[in-house]
Amino acid sequence: MDTRKRQLALQRAARATLPRHGLQMAGVRAEPAASQPLPNPACAPGAGRSCRHALTDVALNAALHSYEQTVRGRFESIEDVLRTLSAWQHERDFVERAQALARQRLDFEWPLAALDSAWVAGVDMAALHAHAMFETIRRCVTLAPQDGAAWRDRLPVQAETLRACGVHTLDVSPCADGRLQGVLPFVLRTAPSDHVVVKAYAGALFDIELDAQDWTQRELERLTGLIDGGERLDYLKVAIYHFSSSHPEHEGCAAHGSHDARAVAAAMERLHGLRAAIDNTFGAGAAPLVMLIGVDTDLDAIRIHLPDARGQLHADRFLDAATLYRETLGLDAAAARRRLHEAVAAHVRELGGVLSRAPGDDGLARLAALWLEANLSQIEYVIEHHNGRYAVIGHDEHFVCVGDALPPLQLRNQYYHAHLDTVEEGSADLDVGVKIFTGLNLRRGLALPVLVHFTYSSRVPGARERAVARGQRVLAAIRARYRQWDERGLLHGRVAVSDRYGRETVALIEEPLADVGH
Amino acid sequence: MDTRKRQLALQRAARATLPRHGLQMAGVRAEPAASQPLPNPACAPGAGRSCRHALTDVALNAALHSYEQTVRGRFESIEDVLRTLSAWQHERDFVERAQALARQRLDFEWPLAALDSAWVAGVDMAALHAHAMFETIRRCVTLAPQDGAAWRDRLPVQAETLRACGVHTLDVSPCADGRLQGVLPFVLRTAPSDHVVVKAYAGALFDIELDAQDWTQRELERLTGLIDGGERLDYLKVAIYHFSSSHPEHEGCAAHGSHDARAVAAAMERLHGLRAAIDNTFGAGAAPLVMLIGVDTDLDAIRIHLPDARGQLHADRFLDAATLYRETLGLDAAAARRRLHEAVAAHVRELGGVLSRAPGDDGLARLAALWLEANLSQIEYVIEHHNGRYAVIGHDEHFVCVGDALPPLQLRNQYYHAHLDTVEEGSADLDVGVKIFTGLNLRRGLALPVLVHFTYSSRVPGARERAVARGQRVLAAIRARYRQWDERGLLHGRVAVSDRYGRETVALIEEPLADVGH
Repeated sequence: MDTRKRQLALQRAARATLPRHGLQMAGVRAEPAASQPLPNPACAPGAGRSCRHALTDVALNAALHSYEQTVRGRFESIEDVLRTLSAWQHERDFVERAQALARQRLDFEWPLAALDSAWVAGVDMAALHAHAMFETIRRCVTLAPQDGAAWRDRLPVQAETLRACGVHTLDVSPCADGRLQGVLPFVLRTAPSDHVVVKAYAGALFDIELDAQDWTQRELERLTGLIDGGERLDYLKVAIYHFSSSHPEHEGCAAHGSHDARAVAAAMERLHGLRAAIDNTFGAGAAPLVMLIGVDTDLDAIRIHLPDARGQLHADRFLDAATLYRETLGLDAAAARRRLHEAVAAHVRELGGVLSRAPGDDGLARLAALWLEANLSQIEYVIEHHNGRYAVIGHDEHFVCVGDALPPLQLRNQYYHAHLDTVEEGSADLDVGVKIFTGLNLRRGLALPVLVHFTYSSRVPGARERAVARGQRVLAAIRARYRQWDERGLLHGRVAVSDRYGRETVALIEEPLADVGH
Repeated sequence: MDTRKRQLALQRAARATLPRHGLQMAGVRAEPAASQPLPNPACAPGAGRSCRHALTDVALNAALHSYEQTVRGRFESIEDVLRTLSAWQHERDFVERAQALARQRLDFEWPLAALDSAWVAGVDMAALHAHAMFETIRRCVTLAPQDGAAWRDRLPVQAETLRACGVHTLDVSPCADGRLQGVLPFVLRTAPSDHVVVKAYAGALFDIELDAQDWTQRELERLTGLIDGGERLDYLKVAIYHFSSSHPEHEGCAAHGSHDARAVAAAMERLHGLRAAIDNTFGAGAAPLVMLIGVDTDLDAIRIHLPDARGQLHADRFLDAATLYRETLGLDAAAARRRLHEAVAAHVRELGGVLSRAPGDDGLARLAALWLEANLSQIEYVIEHHNGRYAVIGHDEHFVCVGDALPPLQLRNQYYHAHLDTVEEGSADLDVGVKIFTGLNLRRGLALPVLVHFTYSSRVPGARERAVARGQRVLAAIRARYRQWDERGLLHGRVAVSDRYGRETVALIEEPLADVGH
């Protein structure tokens, strides 16, 4: 795809001006190498060397790669189709040919009004692009069950796995950055379920008050017997920061000025704050479990910071998956797994124990071992299917998702996700997303597609109507905030809602936007 | 006070043009009488007739009246002082005289910058007015403990009374209308406490999702033993609508077009919705208790709609305090109380029982009886201290309170209260308040004073800073929404925060407004 190629060329050019350095491991900033990609620190294939780790699930990697190609292909066809339409737009049979091409390549039709005066002034390419984007999102959501059939149940971390590690609810706050939006199925190989919640914020700076509310809701469900086996299970909050080993000063977390130490410190402060909030309110020991994870977005390799027995996280103490991959490469599966478990156990001993509700329970350490092992497959996925390092290490998102996450569509760089209830509260997160799209779409004359998505409970009377109204209100506020784009037809938004209990999923609301609130 | 006199004259003039009617009781619309105020339906003194009900707490009424006069006096002095300053503003010793007068009459000083160029262009009266308003709020909050000393503990409904009726938390949503802002201490004679929460909305249209969250928080506290004796206690949600017997078509609830039946139906729908939301989420029987109360804002007389045994409220079935006053006037206290209890019991029988958690528990009926008896004193308060009917039956608020309620300052028509977290969500409520002040202040060239008040938990790290930031964000959004007033210096806002656990109360934030979010 064009954007990608152009970005890649730009990044190579930028890198060429920087001094060459050997790669330095976790905790120390690595400068990017000149002229060609840095080797993958886990393993660089070539010169008789194969990167095939015994713990990699090769079949799962193949299924995920096929999924990635299918979904990316749907979005990448859009630009290709539009370029063809551009060439055809002044032909007499343009409408018929445009519809036929869309049906064939994109599986939808264009709204007639968007085509039939093309012969006068040309088509509104930005409008067609946005329409195609929303229709493709709809298609991916509709096809999600079959798209995921080959890999979803094969992911090593399922709801039962979490429960076996003592976790009834996994509440994950990655950065809003598109590069983190595939973190669950790909990077952590964790299956979506009712009890996995993703709330992305710029810089992973989640909202302590809101998280305390979410914890309260689940804790009450647990105490009233609504969670099977809840008496032995706990709530786990995970914050996920990110960094770039290729280009640490530029492709790390923008919300923290690409300064990794700041990103780690800020996420740790929120996790400690959430624990204190709940311990101080409901009594010591009530606080949820916490974990901090770092992702090298060039490689999808993770670091896990486990909380010590007192619940403290440590910025400079973590388990590094790329190192573990390298150290266990060539061992058979049993030996490699043993080494991995020994590494986790040694780390826990160094910490003086790991946080748990019941003394001696090492559920978090077991989950860390599972995620590290799962991540070995993802490290190899990037080595094998992305030449050791993603071609586009920067932004390449297709749209902005505002509001609640999209469980049926989780893929790296597919969208930027700002979790918010109102633009008033979430404007900082949104501004970062719009700034990214200023580079990706707007400068090229393509629109900024914004999907506003809210989840409601079908058990609450009127909740769907209120979720739709909230979506429309948020979309109106987005139009007002970015009026300079909206007025030029470069902001296209749609509202979608999902039922928490599965009666509908990312249902696009058909009604045109009512003029609300202004 | 001037506004009041002018409004009164206008209302009398308006009434004189309408046909005369006999007063019709509850449920039927009464037309206002011509030329003079309607008689109070509970009792009209005069012609040898005295309105002195045996159940009225005369001493409490006297203490509340003294409180009302003290607080109103502080706010009414402001305009008086400003009129004097206006006459002095071009004198050579203006600054000294202005400061001396403010110290003497208002107990604060003016900011020097606001006075010392008065000789050039005159003083900015709107700015002084707003400054005085916030300083007077601060003074009322500071003096609240002593101002309330004579009556607070004498109020018949204390936290223990609520507990004796099976209620651990009373969550009240009156209309945002200023005439409802004294409803707890005056109309229901209910003492403020940690476990009484007021969330006012235009039309009493409270937020079901937010209330479900508040219920969830308290329910978890109850189940984890943080509420003494919580195992036998329940959460009670009360919605309070209002109407005007003098001028039903114009001085009822503006949010419902002064249409009483609509106000009742809408509040009932929310209460039923809240019960369904919680029953459907946590299992049948989990839902909180509910009650609907109507207030005739001309008389402060209440109607109580009790839920039947299935939790259903009925628009046309209620207990009417003015009728009970009239029917029991002249009886001794014991006989009057017996008649009142008989009336409640008969009503409950007609309903086929009253909603309760445990079968046979009649806590809600007992609470209704207590509130009805308490309201007899308030009915007499209006008869005795306000000539049978408030002189100003319409709006006469002094400021707008946005965000969380102000427990230390609860007085009829003292402020308009819009409970909200963001302007984006609460703009409709806010617009109603600003519209009211367009009539009260803005047309006269006085500013719209907006106090943005948020409560935080000192048990949550960083919560105070976030509450202040929220306040500043909301104030910035208010300035943006009402730019036409702000740009002309006619919108003055201040942020205040209170700790839920009492470490600080309505603390005005001194820092000038930072330029946030724009």
